[in-house]
Amino acid sequence: MSDGIAFSKGHGTQNDFVVLPDAQGSLALSAERVAALCDRHRGLGADGVLRVVRWSALGDGPAPEPGVEWFMDYRNADGSVAEMCGNGVRVYARYLEHAGWLGEAPLRIGTRAGVKDVSFADGEVSVEMGQALVGDPSTAVVAGREFDGVAVDVGNPHLACVTTEDIPALDLTTAPLHDDSLFPQGVNVEFVTPVGPEGVAMRVHERGVGETRSCGTGTVAAVVAALRAAGRESGTVPVVTPGGRLRVTVRDGGASTVLHGPAVLVAHGELDRSWWEAVR
Amino acid sequence: MSDGIAFSKGHGTQNDFVVLPDAQGSLALSAERVAALCDRHRGLGADGVLRVVRWSALGDGPAPEPGVEWFMDYRNADGSVAEMCGNGVRVYARYLEHAGWLGEAPLRIGTRAGVKDVSFADGEVSVEMGQALVGDPSTAVVAGREFDGVAVDVGNPHLACVTTEDIPALDLTTAPLHDDSLFPQGVNVEFVTPVGPEGVAMRVHERGVGETRSCGTGTVAAVVAALRAAGRESGTVPVVTPGGRLRVTVRDGGASTVLHGPAVLVAHGELDRSWWEAVR
Repeated sequence: MSDGIAFSKGHGTQNDFVVLPDAQGSLALSAERVAALCDRHRGLGADGVLRVVRWSALGDGPAPEPGVEWFMDYRNADGSVAEMCGNGVRVYARYLEHAGWLGEAPLRIGTRAGVKDVSFADGEVSVEMGQALVGDPSTAVVAGREFDGVAVDVGNPHLACVTTEDIPALDLTTAPLHDDSLFPQGVNVEFVTPVGPEGVAMRVHERGVGETRSCGTGTVAAVVAALRAAGRESGTVPVVTPGGRLRVTVRDGGASTVLHGPAVLVAHGELDRSWWEAVR
Repeated sequence: MSDGIAFSKGHGTQNDFVVLPDAQGSLALSAERVAALCDRHRGLGADGVLRVVRWSALGDGPAPEPGVEWFMDYRNADGSVAEMCGNGVRVYARYLEHAGWLGEAPLRIGTRAGVKDVSFADGEVSVEMGQALVGDPSTAVVAGREFDGVAVDVGNPHLACVTTEDIPALDLTTAPLHDDSLFPQGVNVEFVTPVGPEGVAMRVHERGVGETRSCGTGTVAAVVAALRAAGRESGTVPVVTPGGRLRVTVRDGGASTVLHGPAVLVAHGELDRSWWEAVR
């Protein structure tokens, strides 16, 4: 095992990742290797790869910000570079804690979508998700039925539909129809219950992916829309997703948001060197 | 990492497994832990678990056979106990090789379906699959089209259909219809091309699972049927499955069969002890 490639596997509400510790930025991480690693039969399997690299060793990418040691080099399962992932950054932080790589100062992690503040409390990991900008009202159509929603930009586009319909019964095996003129790049669509004493329940259809068990930015968009529908500007709301329970804090109608929830490390080990070398 | 549960992850033509080395039989492997481990989002993810245990330490199960050191304790992804898996036993053997646990004598592995002879050659792992018993002719129906096939019992029931139709175009998202009176317990259905200079191509629909990328016993059934359709009783035939390339040797119309192919170890490590303890 001594010559393998170190990894951990973890998840946040079942949004799962292979973590590759690479402090010195020496790993040859091609798109092909990411895709093979994320393949759920011929690799380890994951929604994406989180390369843990010192920002000073990143090479290509945003210039390091003083005082921010670590950069989350996030890759999609198809090998493409991605900007940010709310559940991913929480698992990334859990890995830093596991590795003993947390410093004295509050944790700040560099991403391609800017620096993210992260904190640990009560077994959860919380991450500042920035601004959620409410846009125009619009509608999503599922199996011929129309749902009223509102556009919410959380760095990526969402259409959050607050509804009293039976959300578990919705057929999300195909993408909900949306207004292409409002969302020319496609849109992630959330269906969310009104805010109740237990918080909200949510399902999400991610553009280009399909229904997923959880989505960090989708959770934020859903809570901003649900609070708004209840005539509220701020609050901390529990969200039950198919993958588990998160909480979202919204301030001033979305001027700032925080995602709180579990981040679990499942396994630690080394990729077989001959397997790694066989993929280019 | 020192207090975790050792594992490896591997696959044979993309039929993938978590290997748990447990020579002394001391691991508390509940159905819940198997299911959590095989879950592709909250665990490591696999089609099944292969517990590597000395037959003398197995406890519940078949009585040890003299001279056979290792037993493959195979569990399905839902946590249930399973008898045998052609790709699984090949990955199991690869693990023994990796761990340095092969003896001087030819390798024989105990399973709930009897002792299996295994050999290594040219980078492949081969396993004796025993007898494949040809039964009655029958038909499978896909999208209203009927395919002629033949029942083949390889320890489990198969309906192997040799066809010149375009196999990649078949819609196997739902189970092919079959004759319930001939297959009261359900059946695995193979669609296989006639034997050509390159061998055969195959797709398989496994009962209770759906289409899979590969199936060891299904590959054997397909080759027995394809040889029979060509008027042959014996031969070694390459088989291209969606998950990769295998070969099957058939003697005397199926009196004995051998499955040959790649068995790859992807990673080695330890399950996080706190994750393991949280699942009962």
